[in-house]
Amino acid sequence: MTPDFNSGLGKNQANYAALTPLDYIARAADVYGDRLAIAHGPLRQNWRDTYERTRRLASGLRQLGVGKDDVVAAMLPNTPAMVEASFGVPMAGAVLNALNIRLDLPTLIFMLRHGQAKVLLADTEFAELARQMTEQLPELRVIQVNDLLGPQVGPFAELDYETLLAGGDPAYAWQAPADEWDAIALNYTSGTTGDPKGVVYHHRGAALNALSNILEWDMPKHAVYLWTLPMFHCNGWCFPWSIAARAGVNVCLRKFEPKLVFDLIRELRVTHYCAAPIVHAALANAPASWRDGIDWTVRGMVAGAPPPAAMLARIEAMGFDLIHSYGLTEVYGPASICAEQEDWASLPQDQRAVLKSRQGVRYHLQSAVAVLDPDTMQPVAADGQQIGEIMFRGNICMKGYLKNEKATREAFAGGWFHTGDLGVQYPDGYIKLKDRSKDIIISGGENISSVEVEDALYHHPQVLAAAVIAQPDEKWGETPCAFVELREDASVTAEELIAFCKQHLAGFKVPKAIYFGPLPRTSTGKIQKFELRKRMHSSKAIDV
Amino acid sequence: MTPDFNSGLGKNQANYAALTPLDYIARAADVYGDRLAIAHGPLRQNWRDTYERTRRLASGLRQLGVGKDDVVAAMLPNTPAMVEASFGVPMAGAVLNALNIRLDLPTLIFMLRHGQAKVLLADTEFAELARQMTEQLPELRVIQVNDLLGPQVGPFAELDYETLLAGGDPAYAWQAPADEWDAIALNYTSGTTGDPKGVVYHHRGAALNALSNILEWDMPKHAVYLWTLPMFHCNGWCFPWSIAARAGVNVCLRKFEPKLVFDLIRELRVTHYCAAPIVHAALANAPASWRDGIDWTVRGMVAGAPPPAAMLARIEAMGFDLIHSYGLTEVYGPASICAEQEDWASLPQDQRAVLKSRQGVRYHLQSAVAVLDPDTMQPVAADGQQIGEIMFRGNICMKGYLKNEKATREAFAGGWFHTGDLGVQYPDGYIKLKDRSKDIIISGGENISSVEVEDALYHHPQVLAAAVIAQPDEKWGETPCAFVELREDASVTAEELIAFCKQHLAGFKVPKAIYFGPLPRTSTGKIQKFELRKRMHSSKAIDV
Repeated sequence: MTPDFNSGLGKNQANYAALTPLDYIARAADVYGDRLAIAHGPLRQNWRDTYERTRRLASGLRQLGVGKDDVVAAMLPNTPAMVEASFGVPMAGAVLNALNIRLDLPTLIFMLRHGQAKVLLADTEFAELARQMTEQLPELRVIQVNDLLGPQVGPFAELDYETLLAGGDPAYAWQAPADEWDAIALNYTSGTTGDPKGVVYHHRGAALNALSNILEWDMPKHAVYLWTLPMFHCNGWCFPWSIAARAGVNVCLRKFEPKLVFDLIRELRVTHYCAAPIVHAALANAPASWRDGIDWTVRGMVAGAPPPAAMLARIEAMGFDLIHSYGLTEVYGPASICAEQEDWASLPQDQRAVLKSRQGVRYHLQSAVAVLDPDTMQPVAADGQQIGEIMFRGNICMKGYLKNEKATREAFAGGWFHTGDLGVQYPDGYIKLKDRSKDIIISGGENISSVEVEDALYHHPQVLAAAVIAQPDEKWGETPCAFVELREDASVTAEELIAFCKQHLAGFKVPKAIYFGPLPRTSTGKIQKFELRKRMHSSKAIDV
Repeated sequence: MTPDFNSGLGKNQANYAALTPLDYIARAADVYGDRLAIAHGPLRQNWRDTYERTRRLASGLRQLGVGKDDVVAAMLPNTPAMVEASFGVPMAGAVLNALNIRLDLPTLIFMLRHGQAKVLLADTEFAELARQMTEQLPELRVIQVNDLLGPQVGPFAELDYETLLAGGDPAYAWQAPADEWDAIALNYTSGTTGDPKGVVYHHRGAALNALSNILEWDMPKHAVYLWTLPMFHCNGWCFPWSIAARAGVNVCLRKFEPKLVFDLIRELRVTHYCAAPIVHAALANAPASWRDGIDWTVRGMVAGAPPPAAMLARIEAMGFDLIHSYGLTEVYGPASICAEQEDWASLPQDQRAVLKSRQGVRYHLQSAVAVLDPDTMQPVAADGQQIGEIMFRGNICMKGYLKNEKATREAFAGGWFHTGDLGVQYPDGYIKLKDRSKDIIISGGENISSVEVEDALYHHPQVLAAAVIAQPDEKWGETPCAFVELREDASVTAEELIAFCKQHLAGFKVPKAIYFGPLPRTSTGKIQKFELRKRMHSSKAIDV
């Protein structure tokens, strides 16, 4: 006989609450109301006021007719309004659609239309874009956000953000979602091919990944977080919610400039930030004097592309503590982490950097990451050699793609989220991204990882950025072709770079052609290889 | 038109996993397998081996016929087997019932019978008790645990723990609970009146409160945690699961001895511990030389009874960092916390201690704590004066009482968990426990908090412990009556103590009688006021 652990022991209002990151700001305001929540130019706003403003925003949106599952889009840089929208929009029961502010009008229109956005919060920087949007989408209600550091422009919308908040109730009694599986955000993929897909996040996943961020960094209460990562990118990897859970400080930043970043770190005693490799490269290349006075450990998290080992080493040499995570829009940003092991500390810096450039292990509250053969769904050998597809499962995976059951089904086939990225698993369980399947170069029947070739190029002191793609070759099928952006005043020649690669790579992996020049990047800083493929046929190459 | 955020966007194996603290040990073993998990006497056991042993335990229990919702009881001190049972028992789908090892046989028999325990893990220290249990419960399967620091005795059960583990599968594929609402543990209340009640915990609550523990302490990865708190007490306030989530170290401790505690702190570089006020009092009273060499901040959490402000001050003076939490069995141990505010640091130590002795604010992942009028369910004024009942709501509340729908309904009446404790709320939102309702003394129509009177007594340097109850009084109805345990070599008289109280308390609150002698305590260190009430009528009192 087994006791009955169910009858009379169900959920009720006292013992069950939907998980939601909205609860984190309520607690920050209740317990640490006087503490700084947002720093932006001269603005210093505490948690009590910030919470009050998010409630005003929710209340104001309700007054506009926004309700459950309505989409509120945002064209905002990393400003206080963007932090506030991360809470105020879902407090109204609505779904936040933070748009990538670097995208072109047709793509943005596609997203607004597909997501059926009812309201758009638009920074003055995007006045002209907002006007064009309303021309095409006359029913879209635009709210003009006059950020104190934004361009001063005349009214381009019938309503502005501060007026909306002024009319909202500062004690608005927002409701937790009826179900923690309810949508909290809609984030479009960048869509390298085909239309962008609308990734739907739920409150549960947002609440849990916000905690994973804290767990990995041992992030203390009142951490000071600098917004070098766009908040439109996977909701800033869930960090607006993490910072609220820590009653920390959001140091806003409209636009990345290395000098300003170091100045803000110094002035506000920043402890943590996230950024793509390109941002790290810029920081690493800045004059050392810009870092004067920063004598504490600043913790950075890098993701968005496999960070070259050489870049990791340079950031470490600055006294920053860098950790590498990996993820995609579909997994709320970071979903694996290159958790550092105690014995790595005693390794030479270059060896440590190689270990740290891997994508690592599952994030704290994610159930699993694995490298599987997508046909058999069996794990590949953990030998660092055998290539499979990187897959995730657990609470840090999206609900699915909005209005796209087919793509959702495919993405979750076999009970795993398929990233589309290829990788290997090492004997220590750590995974390493090799390539998007289309980025593998197959030369004479041998697979060449473009990342590996890029890594070799990054080790050259005069290389600022490098991208390697396949070029057709009569004899070998494909050979590696490199695009290289050099540092200022660099003088290295293609021949010298080729010779350098030969010291570090097997012969068949050495680039057969090198093109010099600035690299095309997506709005989130990823190098656009498809642009390079086009360019390959038109640019002047230096064949060897 | 609102987009459809539900159709095709449901839960599946890829994007949903039941929350369970069992996942934390799996990750600790996967990512930090070589790191120390358990230290016990000469034993040093890493996370890989600990996880393997918990899987063997689960597998061995399954072989004994243990399955979903079967109860596995434990009579274990804070030993490695108790840590392992916290994971291995629920991995078998079973429910862990950690028994209070200080209880008498009839009470234990009541619990085993009420919980329908199928298996009992019993340390050799309880050989005789286990024999008596099986006499009364012949179907109970006892597993003898020969702890390496326990008494060496002959076999008292057909099976021993190591044999069970040896026959278990180290790679046993345990399943997460089908539903995160499934029971993980059964913990009996101490039952000051009536039969003990069986409090049922679910996986979700255990997983979340384990994280709350980490959040409050900013507990870093690989924290070293000393087991001064019994693991049979609300599953050690969920800390076995917190430590696994941090891949930290469990420093086991069969029995509290102040000298041993300081030695373990020094040897293993302990960073964190929890304990009742009585344990803290013993630490504070130990010779200062015992702390030699402990030159880092040790963080303690105190709960179980309102800690006297004077004791808090003494612990701080030792260089320990003490935080005060409050809870009950029904809320997984700590469910409110006296979160420290920045500006307290600059206050004089006695003022800071007064603030820190409050029960504080809701714990991180608990939804709310409030002081309500139980009749109207409205909050009392936050003035530090008006008394109401302390209530909780949120994910850190039990499923309910096993086989006791009436008590469950009453406990959750009005959508809040009723603690039965009386308290006030201050303007800063912090709550303070005044008394169990029966501990309020009503004298001449005025309420007197026995805690307040006790606090005054604790400030006297010769008072080791104090308890105040009501004594009947013809004129006033009731008057305060104090029971005081003095320090060794103390010489203070009742008259002197009364005079001391008059300096600190309003006249009507000063004890009218003082009794000296050791105080009766429950197995968990709480002073047994009902024993004192009995004693009042038989002991020699010194009336003033």
